[in-house]
Amino acid sequence: MIVSVIGTGGIGGYYGGRLAQAGHDVHFLLHSDYEHVKQHGLRVDSVNGDFHISAPNVYDDADNMPVSDLVLVCLKTTNNHLLPQLLRSVVGEHTVVILIQNGIGVEEDVQAMLPNAQLVAGLAFICTAKVAPGHINHQCYGQINLGNYSCRDEKALAAIADHFTQAGITAAMVEYREARWKKAVWNMPFNGMTVALNTRTDLLLKNPATRLLIREQMMEIVRAAKHQGINGVDEAFVEKMIAMTDEMTPYSPSMKLDFDFHRPMEIKYIYSRPLEIARQAGMPMPKLEMLEAELRFIESEK
Amino acid sequence: MIVSVIGTGGIGGYYGGRLAQAGHDVHFLLHSDYEHVKQHGLRVDSVNGDFHISAPNVYDDADNMPVSDLVLVCLKTTNNHLLPQLLRSVVGEHTVVILIQNGIGVEEDVQAMLPNAQLVAGLAFICTAKVAPGHINHQCYGQINLGNYSCRDEKALAAIADHFTQAGITAAMVEYREARWKKAVWNMPFNGMTVALNTRTDLLLKNPATRLLIREQMMEIVRAAKHQGINGVDEAFVEKMIAMTDEMTPYSPSMKLDFDFHRPMEIKYIYSRPLEIARQAGMPMPKLEMLEAELRFIESEK
Repeated sequence: MIVSVIGTGGIGGYYGGRLAQAGHDVHFLLHSDYEHVKQHGLRVDSVNGDFHISAPNVYDDADNMPVSDLVLVCLKTTNNHLLPQLLRSVVGEHTVVILIQNGIGVEEDVQAMLPNAQLVAGLAFICTAKVAPGHINHQCYGQINLGNYSCRDEKALAAIADHFTQAGITAAMVEYREARWKKAVWNMPFNGMTVALNTRTDLLLKNPATRLLIREQMMEIVRAAKHQGINGVDEAFVEKMIAMTDEMTPYSPSMKLDFDFHRPMEIKYIYSRPLEIARQAGMPMPKLEMLEAELRFIESEK
Repeated sequence: MIVSVIGTGGIGGYYGGRLAQAGHDVHFLLHSDYEHVKQHGLRVDSVNGDFHISAPNVYDDADNMPVSDLVLVCLKTTNNHLLPQLLRSVVGEHTVVILIQNGIGVEEDVQAMLPNAQLVAGLAFICTAKVAPGHINHQCYGQINLGNYSCRDEKALAAIADHFTQAGITAAMVEYREARWKKAVWNMPFNGMTVALNTRTDLLLKNPATRLLIREQMMEIVRAAKHQGINGVDEAFVEKMIAMTDEMTPYSPSMKLDFDFHRPMEIKYIYSRPLEIARQAGMPMPKLEMLEAELRFIESEK
């Protein structure tokens, strides 16, 4: 496959690197690390085995990249306004675009910018980060779930999932809306609450008041999903997410890292869009609405 | 009248001082400032005229205070567990006890401790503070509204209101529940939100997201009050509170001052009790519930 990776950070560097290692023709778009990676290649330290790509195809201008079979969009959603420009060269009639991004409503908005693009939601369950220019550290997990949003060629998508698996990346096909809303059950409470109270996941669960609050926020998502006819997002799943977080080592969600490092927070797709969808469906999520307002205030104070 | 002031801070010092100045027999309970006030008296700087009480009746032990016609309880509610002990000498069969305290549910809990006491809610609209030992600074307003909770002698209560007015303190009789819930419309959003976001009233109203949130929190109180059959707490009152706060100079509510000076916050009566009452009445206040949980977390981190 010809693969283009739009945004070569922890996620794009790892998945793109694995596909390149497996022999696919992978093209990486870089920004600040372009010169470094051009000279020194891409280094991936991984629990599943370290590797180095000595001469990757690297670009600092997306317009020079080839039309691709597969495009992995691995940008923060705060940069999604750049996508029409970043995707105009790589996306052709048969291209499958996987949006490995946080939140709800991403595919709808990207589709409005690119009406003919074949979009797939990519939900990554992985701990990976860029620790230095051209240096990715993959610490745990690695699975990617794929939810078809507007891909017309189911066979091509199934083939892509197979290519992932053959490259050492566990990939599974999932129902699009269920997958996005299930991921929100963890993401919406923990991303914002760790910022609003400047704390960690374990401390939020240790305090009885915030433990109950986190649970109630998760139940708001369960009710909003159920009201839209989305299956599989239920109270048992909430209990599973809380139990899983109890077992985790103290953890800073991506929004907390963005906040700590003074990067813009992904408020729009992690909060505003799902809150709007739930409100329009007639089942608002009041405690998560309050969290959004607090995050907007915190963002404005920076 | 024989008057006992339980807690001689900004409120107790000012109102007690005015009643003493008007010739009533006022007895002040003090704690840390006892020796100072015993030696130097009580100094009140007031927009309505400064005065000094050179030899006030002061006590460091409530058991030495006389049975009184009127008791002003001016403690923070975080000390209310001390009331059975602090009131056992001063409260007799005919005593009227005015609780000049924040929140909702105070009278109910004090009544449970002192089943025969005649309780009245005192809602102070005043800017006053203790600025040094025995030195009160009264900056603006001064009205006290009185809501009868369990005073059996309406005439005695009316006479007390007259005594206040004659002493230069505007006093008005109001409906108990309406008065407490109306005061909550301002107190519940602004006290907690200035702590949760470590900010000021004016900045909360300047940001569109938190301005809307404050309004929605106020509307939760309107709906909870209406659902309980309490009149006069309506959307027009919400608009009035927001307009008033827009006109105010930047202001730190009492809970923000308590937080800044590392004193315990009055979470129980400003939040937990009204939230519980609303929930039991079948009209919960979800955004204010979330605020309570955040305050409990913040309190536990101190």
